[in-house]
Amino acid sequence: VSLHDRGLLYGEGVFETIAVRDARPLNLDRHLARLSRGCERLTIPPPDPELLSSEAHRLIGGDDRAVLKIMVTGGEGDRGYAPPAARSPNRILMISPWPDRLERFDTRGIPVMLCRTRLALNPPLAGIKHLNRLEQVLARSELGGEYQEGIVRDMEGNVVEGTSANLMLISRDRLVTPDLSRCGIEGIMRHQILEASSHLGILAEIRTVSLDEVLGAESLFFTNVVIGLRHVSRVGDRDFDAHPWVEALRATVQRLEAGSGMTET
Amino acid sequence: VSLHDRGLLYGEGVFETIAVRDARPLNLDRHLARLSRGCERLTIPPPDPELLSSEAHRLIGGDDRAVLKIMVTGGEGDRGYAPPAARSPNRILMISPWPDRLERFDTRGIPVMLCRTRLALNPPLAGIKHLNRLEQVLARSELGGEYQEGIVRDMEGNVVEGTSANLMLISRDRLVTPDLSRCGIEGIMRHQILEASSHLGILAEIRTVSLDEVLGAESLFFTNVVIGLRHVSRVGDRDFDAHPWVEALRATVQRLEAGSGMTET
Repeated sequence: VSLHDRGLLYGEGVFETIAVRDARPLNLDRHLARLSRGCERLTIPPPDPELLSSEAHRLIGGDDRAVLKIMVTGGEGDRGYAPPAARSPNRILMISPWPDRLERFDTRGIPVMLCRTRLALNPPLAGIKHLNRLEQVLARSELGGEYQEGIVRDMEGNVVEGTSANLMLISRDRLVTPDLSRCGIEGIMRHQILEASSHLGILAEIRTVSLDEVLGAESLFFTNVVIGLRHVSRVGDRDFDAHPWVEALRATVQRLEAGSGMTET
Repeated sequence: VSLHDRGLLYGEGVFETIAVRDARPLNLDRHLARLSRGCERLTIPPPDPELLSSEAHRLIGGDDRAVLKIMVTGGEGDRGYAPPAARSPNRILMISPWPDRLERFDTRGIPVMLCRTRLALNPPLAGIKHLNRLEQVLARSELGGEYQEGIVRDMEGNVVEGTSANLMLISRDRLVTPDLSRCGIEGIMRHQILEASSHLGILAEIRTVSLDEVLGAESLFFTNVVIGLRHVSRVGDRDFDAHPWVEALRATVQRLEAGSGMTET
C-alpha cells in the first residue's frame, strides 16, 4: 500500500475478519454492512458491497477453510489530517490460512486473565472496527503465550470485551453482554448470538457490566467469528462451569449460519 | 509498505513531523528522542537515532525548505493483535515540499473555531505521537476550508490542544498550557517554548485548563514545528490581542533554534 495512504498515516479505515468455511465467507452480508457503517462514521465513501463480495469470492477461490480480511482505508491524501476533498478509498482483501489447532466452536473451556489495559471512552468511534487498534495490541501483549484471551475493562472499570472477542455472561437467568456505545467493537458473532437467544426464548440484556458481576456470573464465554463461542473455565482463581445455554446457543448459531449460507448463494 | 505491516493493520507505530530550513532538520535530536520514547511505550525496539539522522540528512540533500516525516512502525507480524516475538520495525522517511503560502513564525493572527470532537482519556497512550489519529482526523474535518485551527477538548470538557498544534494561553501573568498526561500530543515546539519562557523569566504552568479560562485569557496561540507560534485573533465572537510575550517567545525560540543548529552540525 502507498506510503501516503491515510490508513497507514492515521489509521483512517475499517476492517472485517471473516471466517471462510467450505469456501464460503460466513455472514458476509453482515460484515459488509458493518464495514459500510464504519466507513460512513469516518466520512469515507463506502465501497459497493457487490463489488467487495465478488472480489472476496474470487480471492477465496476453492479455499476450504481460511480467514479473510477486508480493509477499506481513506486512500491517499495531501500532508496533514484533513481528508482530501476528492476521496478515493482503497480496498484491500487478504486471505490467511485457518489457524493451526483452532477448531471453530470448540467446546472446551479456556482460562483467561484480567488485563490491566483499559479502553478509553470515545462514543463517536465506539462499536466500529476501525484501524486505530493500539489499545487491543497493548491488551493482547499482556496475555503473553499463557492465555488465549483476557477480560478488558474501560477507564471507569466496567467490563467491555476481550482483547479480540466479545464477552457474554449468563447471570440470573439472563444472557448479558456489555453495552458498546462508549468503547469496544460490536462483533458480528455477538449479533448472531443475540439473534440465536431470541430464537431460543432466552432473555438477553445489553447494558453496563461491572467486574463483580462478571466474576459472580454462572457462566462466561468469549465470542467472535473465528472462534465461534468459547466457554471460559477460569478467571484468576474463580472456576466457571459451562451452562446448558452455551451449547444451545452454539447449536442455534451454527444452524442459522448454515441456513444463511444457502440463501447467500 | 507491506499489507502485513502492523502500522497499517493497527496503527502500531509513531511518527515525527520535522521542519527543514536551510537544508537542516530543525530540532532533530528532540524529535528522535520523542520517537524513541514513543516506540518504547508501544514495545517497539527504537531504531538507532544515528541511523535515522543519517537517513534524514541523505533524504533532505540540498532541499532548502521542506517538511520531513519519519515514521517507525511495528513491522510485519502474523495475523492478530499479538506483537511478533521477533520484532523488525520499519523505518519510513518522507519529504514533502514546504506548504504554499505558509510562513514559519507568521506574526498575523488567525481566527479559530471550537471543535465538537472530543479526545478520549487514555493515559498509557497520551503524549506520544502514535499512528492512531482518528480523533485528530475527525476534529480537523470540522474546520472545513474556513479555519486553519480549532480548539479541541477532552471527554470531560477541558481544553487539550488544537487539531494539529498545541495551545498556549497567557493568563494572569503566566504562560499556561494544558497538561497532556491523559490525552493529546506533547509537541516539540511546545517544549521549545516552555524552555524559551524560562530564558525570559516568564512563569509557565502545565495544568488542567477549562474552556472558560481559555476564553477569558489575555492572549492565545497555537504552536507546532511547522507553523512556529501562531497568535489567535478570534474564537467565536471573542477577539484576542497579541501579547508582547508572544513576540518575545517567538524571537527566543528562533534564537535557540539557530544556536542548536550550529551545535548539531
